[in-house]
Amino acid sequence: MQTFIKDLIQQNTAKILLIVLDGLGGLPVNGRTELDAAKKPNLDLLAQGSACGLHIPVAQGITPGSGPGHLSLFGYDPVEWQIGRGVLEALGLGVELKKTDVAIRVNYATLENGIVKDRRAGRPPTEESRKITERLQREISKIDDVKIIFSPGMEHRFAVVFRFPEPLPGGSAAIKDTDPQKEGKTPVAVTPETPQAERVAQIAGKLISNIAEIIKNEPRANYVLLRGFAQVPDIPHFNDAYGLKPLCIAVYPMYRGLATLIGMEAPALKGDIREEIDFLKKNYHAYDFFFMHVKKIDSYGEDGNFDGKVHKIEEFDRALPDILALNPDVLIITGDHSTPSVMKSHSWHPVPVMLNSPYVLGRTSQAFTERECLKGEFGIFPTVNLMPLALANAGRLKKFGA
Amino acid sequence: MQTFIKDLIQQNTAKILLIVLDGLGGLPVNGRTELDAAKKPNLDLLAQGSACGLHIPVAQGITPGSGPGHLSLFGYDPVEWQIGRGVLEALGLGVELKKTDVAIRVNYATLENGIVKDRRAGRPPTEESRKITERLQREISKIDDVKIIFSPGMEHRFAVVFRFPEPLPGGSAAIKDTDPQKEGKTPVAVTPETPQAERVAQIAGKLISNIAEIIKNEPRANYVLLRGFAQVPDIPHFNDAYGLKPLCIAVYPMYRGLATLIGMEAPALKGDIREEIDFLKKNYHAYDFFFMHVKKIDSYGEDGNFDGKVHKIEEFDRALPDILALNPDVLIITGDHSTPSVMKSHSWHPVPVMLNSPYVLGRTSQAFTERECLKGEFGIFPTVNLMPLALANAGRLKKFGA
Repeated sequence: MQTFIKDLIQQNTAKILLIVLDGLGGLPVNGRTELDAAKKPNLDLLAQGSACGLHIPVAQGITPGSGPGHLSLFGYDPVEWQIGRGVLEALGLGVELKKTDVAIRVNYATLENGIVKDRRAGRPPTEESRKITERLQREISKIDDVKIIFSPGMEHRFAVVFRFPEPLPGGSAAIKDTDPQKEGKTPVAVTPETPQAERVAQIAGKLISNIAEIIKNEPRANYVLLRGFAQVPDIPHFNDAYGLKPLCIAVYPMYRGLATLIGMEAPALKGDIREEIDFLKKNYHAYDFFFMHVKKIDSYGEDGNFDGKVHKIEEFDRALPDILALNPDVLIITGDHSTPSVMKSHSWHPVPVMLNSPYVLGRTSQAFTERECLKGEFGIFPTVNLMPLALANAGRLKKFGA
Repeated sequence: MQTFIKDLIQQNTAKILLIVLDGLGGLPVNGRTELDAAKKPNLDLLAQGSACGLHIPVAQGITPGSGPGHLSLFGYDPVEWQIGRGVLEALGLGVELKKTDVAIRVNYATLENGIVKDRRAGRPPTEESRKITERLQREISKIDDVKIIFSPGMEHRFAVVFRFPEPLPGGSAAIKDTDPQKEGKTPVAVTPETPQAERVAQIAGKLISNIAEIIKNEPRANYVLLRGFAQVPDIPHFNDAYGLKPLCIAVYPMYRGLATLIGMEAPALKGDIREEIDFLKKNYHAYDFFFMHVKKIDSYGEDGNFDGKVHKIEEFDRALPDILALNPDVLIITGDHSTPSVMKSHSWHPVPVMLNSPYVLGRTSQAFTERECLKGEFGIFPTVNLMPLALANAGRLKKFGA
């Protein structure tokens, strides 16, 4: 965020609700996007009285991952604050990371005479690999002064976190993947790429030896390959940056994990949009800022299921009146990136957004669609500017300069 | 401004007229903004043939003060060139500042046994405080080698300027306010926050002692509190930056003061829009660039007087034909920030703008309103880009690169 924002923050009691419909934006099939096709009277009516626009999470043409998409929404420059693969993997498996942690993605592999025969150990069933990972945790809990945390994942995948007794200097996770990328090669030795990374490399080397000794008699998963070494970034906390007390309302661990990285409270939660709304209502009095994450719209987009994505948008539309009943001072509905079902993936397309507050122009857009948002008063703008707009509409920013 | 602009400047005889309707943009009341409600056939007709858009003075969500708002219009990055409180106060009181000056806002206060009993000395009538300030000027005109200039203000407020014999290094005004912010406390000692500020701090310390001695027997205004120490910024002059000979046409001292900071001529002027137009006509032959400031639209916005703001827009509209009769090569009509009457304050909302020249697309906008400007060929853009657009339309910018 721009440094002068912090000096302009002022306190009041206004509440900001940011609803992220994951993967919201789309592309047309027979001329109509998912948002065009969805019957969503509540969203369309709200858009008519809101400030509308389209935002660009990273840069034009750049397809954001979930990390950059969300950091931008929270007002953090996603190019400045990059979240390493290992960290995202660990967050996705539900590990609560601390700023002293280094996180690593790990594959079980099959080693034969020192040669990697199968980089994925024949993709063992998740239940089978989970048992091996749990055994590793029982036998390895510490290496030197470093706590070792194992998190089982799907099939051959799991995550390991090194919890150091104190924060490490920058560059401490600059270590090459030990995965040779091709079968028939030897594993890559643990190689620190900077002097600061030597400490982590030592622990990693010992970890690999210890694991290999424990699982050497497994028929397939008898070795491990380490990838995506990453330090937990020391991002300014949301409360320090904006003077807001934030609550994350999300079902998927990765989004809760991202939220905790910037100091949001993010209690575990099960269910779907209904449970999320109940949770929002129950906690509405106790926080200033609410990040509510709605996952399934993206999932159907990723599956290439146009109708499924449409139905999930319609489902959210039916739930919207319950949210509006809370009468938040500032309500933002948007996505973290577009996921057009025709592409079956995240995309670089700008993401529709509407912001409702008493201080908008409004009456620029007839519906909450990509093309109507293009007519809106926000125009096309960088996603990182959304938080200052939210704060301004909440009356939480002082004037800049006399 | 972007550094390469200067290399592209070329001379011709084209004249640019920038009319700033202070606080122009607004928000709807019953669906219509002040610009929607105003009957302004001349402005609407002009907009139909102009390049229209909306500009953002500082950044999305940031509400600009008058200083940043105007600097942006003149093409200066308002975050890079911040104008301190003391400087703006002195400019507002009509002091002509030089680059060797440090300016300070001052309050008369009531001191009792070394404790601040009233930070505003009981808000004395302006006439009473003016007499005290004039007496101070008679008795204090110099401290060491520094000329001291007093400027009476409203009630308990006045300004002091330290005019040094030569420019001071950066950081020379980094001195804490001596105002303790609360009654019942002792005044804060003059404290330099950098080594460079020691010279100014010494003068300030002597000034406070001298003043206290002179006014010690005043019943209420027997002490002073110093706030907002500020150096005059060494901004590149308009003529050096753009090769334009500029004239400021403004009634309020602060806007004339801002203009003089960047080297504009800014003669004192009384009256309203009619007098400003007469002054423009009289001086039209002698300058290349005219900044005409129209204040009252903002004032009614700040008062929350929707109809008053509408009437002032209509009044300007009636005067517009007289301006058009001059047939300027480039005519820009805009504001320095929005002042929606519903908010009774400056706001962060983008500001409507139209630029008329022979080189515009036009026919995008039916009227000069926020929503119609949104359809314009300029889109939503940073205010600092307006000067390059003005220069380009005046034929005063060469091609960049071969």
